[in-house]
Amino acid sequence: MIETMRWEGDRLLLLDQRLLPKTIEFVECLTAEAVSEAITAMVVRGAPAIGVAAAYGVVLAVKACQNVGAIQDNEFQDRITRLRNSRPTAVNLMWAVDRMIAVIGRTQKIQLEDLVEICDAEARLIEQEDVNVNRAIGGFGASVCTHHQRILTYCNAGALATAGYGTALGVVRSASERYDDVSVFACETRPYLQGSRLTSWELMQDSIPVTLIADNMVGYAMSKSLIDIVVVGTDRVTSNGDVANKIGTYQVAIIAKRHGVPFYVATPTSTIDFNLSSGTDIPIEQRPSHEVTGYGSEQFAPNGINVLNPAFDVTPAELVTGLITEYGIVNPCSEALQELKRKISRQVM
Amino acid sequence: MIETMRWEGDRLLLLDQRLLPKTIEFVECLTAEAVSEAITAMVVRGAPAIGVAAAYGVVLAVKACQNVGAIQDNEFQDRITRLRNSRPTAVNLMWAVDRMIAVIGRTQKIQLEDLVEICDAEARLIEQEDVNVNRAIGGFGASVCTHHQRILTYCNAGALATAGYGTALGVVRSASERYDDVSVFACETRPYLQGSRLTSWELMQDSIPVTLIADNMVGYAMSKSLIDIVVVGTDRVTSNGDVANKIGTYQVAIIAKRHGVPFYVATPTSTIDFNLSSGTDIPIEQRPSHEVTGYGSEQFAPNGINVLNPAFDVTPAELVTGLITEYGIVNPCSEALQELKRKISRQVM
Repeated sequence: MIETMRWEGDRLLLLDQRLLPKTIEFVECLTAEAVSEAITAMVVRGAPAIGVAAAYGVVLAVKACQNVGAIQDNEFQDRITRLRNSRPTAVNLMWAVDRMIAVIGRTQKIQLEDLVEICDAEARLIEQEDVNVNRAIGGFGASVCTHHQRILTYCNAGALATAGYGTALGVVRSASERYDDVSVFACETRPYLQGSRLTSWELMQDSIPVTLIADNMVGYAMSKSLIDIVVVGTDRVTSNGDVANKIGTYQVAIIAKRHGVPFYVATPTSTIDFNLSSGTDIPIEQRPSHEVTGYGSEQFAPNGINVLNPAFDVTPAELVTGLITEYGIVNPCSEALQELKRKISRQVM
Repeated sequence: MIETMRWEGDRLLLLDQRLLPKTIEFVECLTAEAVSEAITAMVVRGAPAIGVAAAYGVVLAVKACQNVGAIQDNEFQDRITRLRNSRPTAVNLMWAVDRMIAVIGRTQKIQLEDLVEICDAEARLIEQEDVNVNRAIGGFGASVCTHHQRILTYCNAGALATAGYGTALGVVRSASERYDDVSVFACETRPYLQGSRLTSWELMQDSIPVTLIADNMVGYAMSKSLIDIVVVGTDRVTSNGDVANKIGTYQVAIIAKRHGVPFYVATPTSTIDFNLSSGTDIPIEQRPSHEVTGYGSEQFAPNGINVLNPAFDVTPAELVTGLITEYGIVNPCSEALQELKRKISRQVM
């Protein structure tokens, strides 16, 4: 299995996803700042993976303190704020940092090294839970698949986007374990090409058959009845069931609706933002022009061209067939999500 | 104005659109075979431009004959067949070659040099007619635009895709002449990036404001009410009003429908295939994998990845608001197209 990140107690090694599939190289983060930078620069990406990385970032921020009193200092707070702001759309980032800060808040009158140990254990727990959650999502997702299923996915919601196994690709993996003839269509996902570079590579590593298409070929593929089901990941689900995910997801959902193809969103409950009432409230990150005007050493577009480059879009709940969570498949509506919230508060996973 | 091609009596110079916007260079075609090759290799692209180039290709094929009798030989017929087969989807290619062959068929007992002269004149006429037709299309198209119109276009249906002025971009040009605040959103159009490389460049040459987006941002842009109207070109319209155009056009039409954005297709009547009853009968060219797995010197995807790369798709008539022809705006339905066919047979443009 691919290793997205490795925690070594005093440093976080992040697989540099910008270099995939050509080069397999890890970026070493010795400080919380380095983790923030790696998140912003997309060394690591994918909402759950960012959350886990940020949790380890908090451990590094605590370790950098002179003593336990320094937790109250501006310097520490600034490091945490920077971590929180390293990507604006993914809710797991906030969720993981909040959880770490809550753990710190619950400790009283202890030595710094003990606090570091507690934080270290909590971050490792977040990582392990993420893998467990993904396996649960995979199992529930596989239950809506059958033999010979041709699954379309978008961007990369795989092991690379999580602590391991993946959300949408967790469903693919589980379905593929259950039925040996499952195959995948991966959209390349311009401008950052996560589908072309990451999903294709990840599935080939696992010997799961995958066909790469450009993002504008979804309509063609569905009109030719080549797709049975869509499964994507998400960066944030709001309390009414709206789904923020990689730019282009929304139009895949529109096209799926027209063709009667079920559209599922694989989401850990940590990605659900129960505080936000609808997708229109989600901040959408705008990224630099050069991502659209070219790729790597190739510049396609003329110099000076005006560019729009939103990193995410919002798929309204009405286009979503179901949310595949670690608690089961949930209808994307306020009532079902309120019920899920109650279930989460009663249970520990 | 951009020069897409230049006929010099004994050679056809084609602007090498593969090198744009970086390099402005012409490919010299001295034979019909060279024209066929240039069409297949996409030195020249765009249905009307291909038609005009093929007409000059026929002139070169005639010039290559030893005498007028050689028109009946296999060698000549092979050259014509090769021209016809250089791109399978565009109907203008067949239309232009047929028109040239019909002219040759009408000549009797003349010298080869006279036949060459007749063919030369006919090809020049086809070229000039194309510009006139585009200007007429532009005028009719501008009539459905208003002040401050934000027009989304796809691929390149511009001067570069025609003998001059453009079909969809002819509408943009006419609207821009009428209202000074018209602006354009250009989809980059993977994998060949005609929008990024050609449409952006062409509009910047004319100082028409243009914003480049990736193909997966159409849904986002429409959900933010950034688009007032869609105008695209076409490679073939069938007698029921279905429209074949660059891959991805179909899904733009689906998204436009959802958002109530009018979706117009700018089409010379020479692009209408009255012999084909519906879009399902249109042959769709499949192109090589390497176009999707990378661009230029950059390879994005892993080695050995499976790829689907259809060059075109079909937009069903029900998603098309209107066909903008040189005779006016026509409903995309069998009755209106039959009426148009009668009009064409009565008139000479």
